[in-house]
Amino acid sequence: MGQVIAFDAGRGSPESLKPLLDLVATDMEAINRIILDKHVSDVELIPELAHHLIDSGGKRLRPMLALAACKLCGYSGTGHIRVASAIEFMHTATLLHDDVVDESGLRRGKQTARMLWGNQASVLVGDFLLGQAFRTLVDVGSLPVLRILSNAAAVIAEGEVMQLAAANNTTTTEDDYLAIINAKTAALFSAAAEVGAAISNRPAAEQAALKSYGRNLGLAFQLVDDALDYSGDSASLGKAIGDDFREGKITLPVILSFRRGSEEERQFWKRTIADGDLKDGDLEHAVALMKQHKALEATMERARSYGAIAHDALAIFPNRPEKSAMQDVIAFCVHRTH
Amino acid sequence: MGQVIAFDAGRGSPESLKPLLDLVATDMEAINRIILDKHVSDVELIPELAHHLIDSGGKRLRPMLALAACKLCGYSGTGHIRVASAIEFMHTATLLHDDVVDESGLRRGKQTARMLWGNQASVLVGDFLLGQAFRTLVDVGSLPVLRILSNAAAVIAEGEVMQLAAANNTTTTEDDYLAIINAKTAALFSAAAEVGAAISNRPAAEQAALKSYGRNLGLAFQLVDDALDYSGDSASLGKAIGDDFREGKITLPVILSFRRGSEEERQFWKRTIADGDLKDGDLEHAVALMKQHKALEATMERARSYGAIAHDALAIFPNRPEKSAMQDVIAFCVHRTH
Repeated sequence: MGQVIAFDAGRGSPESLKPLLDLVATDMEAINRIILDKHVSDVELIPELAHHLIDSGGKRLRPMLALAACKLCGYSGTGHIRVASAIEFMHTATLLHDDVVDESGLRRGKQTARMLWGNQASVLVGDFLLGQAFRTLVDVGSLPVLRILSNAAAVIAEGEVMQLAAANNTTTTEDDYLAIINAKTAALFSAAAEVGAAISNRPAAEQAALKSYGRNLGLAFQLVDDALDYSGDSASLGKAIGDDFREGKITLPVILSFRRGSEEERQFWKRTIADGDLKDGDLEHAVALMKQHKALEATMERARSYGAIAHDALAIFPNRPEKSAMQDVIAFCVHRTH
Repeated sequence: MGQVIAFDAGRGSPESLKPLLDLVATDMEAINRIILDKHVSDVELIPELAHHLIDSGGKRLRPMLALAACKLCGYSGTGHIRVASAIEFMHTATLLHDDVVDESGLRRGKQTARMLWGNQASVLVGDFLLGQAFRTLVDVGSLPVLRILSNAAAVIAEGEVMQLAAANNTTTTEDDYLAIINAKTAALFSAAAEVGAAISNRPAAEQAALKSYGRNLGLAFQLVDDALDYSGDSASLGKAIGDDFREGKITLPVILSFRRGSEEERQFWKRTIADGDLKDGDLEHAVALMKQHKALEATMERARSYGAIAHDALAIFPNRPEKSAMQDVIAFCVHRTH
């Protein structure tokens, strides 16, 4: 349990994130000041709970992507900092609610907010952060940006509801799964990249290209996440391996193993994933079946494929450091180990 | 238990709501079509769960106030319908999350969504409705309206967090309580009225007047709600009497009874409200203490006082049917029995 399967291990090292980190370093300092501002609310519990999560070493990928997209589009205003902060607020709100819905105990190696402050506070502080995100976006005053991000907020919630409805259902198809991760994860990556063109008033073709880049990057990111839940290293992941299995969550490794398996194996998946009747050794058996049917490799293969689409989506932009930094991020997302 | 205390009973009859209902009847049909549209989302569970609550006979006071304020300001566009729908979506999202936070079983005489579909779905569908509200507002395209309502969304959540932090705390002051209900309830009433002036580009004085009207009406509304929780009639309220008591919620009737009571009585409030150690007959004893100290009458007196401020706030507007309909609503809110 918890063993790392080497999918091109090494290539996914933090080096492929470095060009992006360097590109947006100054702006990210400004963003960190906004998202860690103790004065976000006078209600003490709000900054306390929000910062527990925000300050827990998340990668801040989404605001970084928004900043890089703004730079790629030659944006010269000052609104990008607040837009990127709002995106991180939206993401944090989603995580707070996800942890309540999934009854998660650990995130990024720390106890989840709901374990420390309860589900009630996590729900309400998530609501506050979503409101705060929109307040920040209204301040920036770009209706196209507001349109993209309000749409993302609704779509993300739709994806979470779809995921909830598919839970424990072993007949979920790969298409159903794609619709779920497209909404719950790819929508915000997509929106983060798209706002770069929208705030810079760039032509529709560039906005569509960034939207496609973000969407496919988000799909790749979530596919890897779902593979890591069965193959990652608990310590570097900062959460327990097999969480999805224990929650009966339907992800691609399960869908493929179920479809590629024997009738007897399907009974195993039904007992564990559908009925939640878990015994010692079930997780190890699930991982063994996934290896036997190359379900994790296939999941990673899909991730690489979406990554390639994301890469090509940026082709219409001139070769500039921003473009290559954004393309390097794809390798990071596909090859990361946590 | 569940007996109705007659505070000027009769005057608060539905008649005082009738002028408003007549004024906005046509627009409310359009709003009902929007908020009950089965196509709000393709994810089946979303309209199903949302409509369970939306269709359960709520008064739709907030969208009606927004419509009346638009009319009072002479608005001649078409955006008011969507703005008022968005306000009802926001309110519905709040109710879904409130019922999760309060672990409520009944609302408007029906089982709460969380009892039928679970807490998880209630949290996520609430998130969807908030996203949908902003999506609808962005469509209308008025940044001043977006500013007012995004601010309200954040403030409402702040109020709910404050209420959670004050739960079980018998030393909460009347000022603390006012700050809570100002945020959790009055903010949306206030925003609903204020958008009427904002969308019509009326002068700041009119916008401020409507904001003040809504705020004070919201305070009165919540004060009456809190009195009814100890004095209303269970059947017409559509929820159990004494919910606040059982949840250890600190409302003005408790604050006043605690402050006006003897040391022995304070021990009773500490045992019940602070420690949640409830015995048979405690609710009846609580109501008896409230009567003895005139805590319910005083709560209603405060409500009337805020109602009077709301009435005067509209003084700067000419005498038109919209104005008198909005003033009649004050009587409805103050004298209602459910």
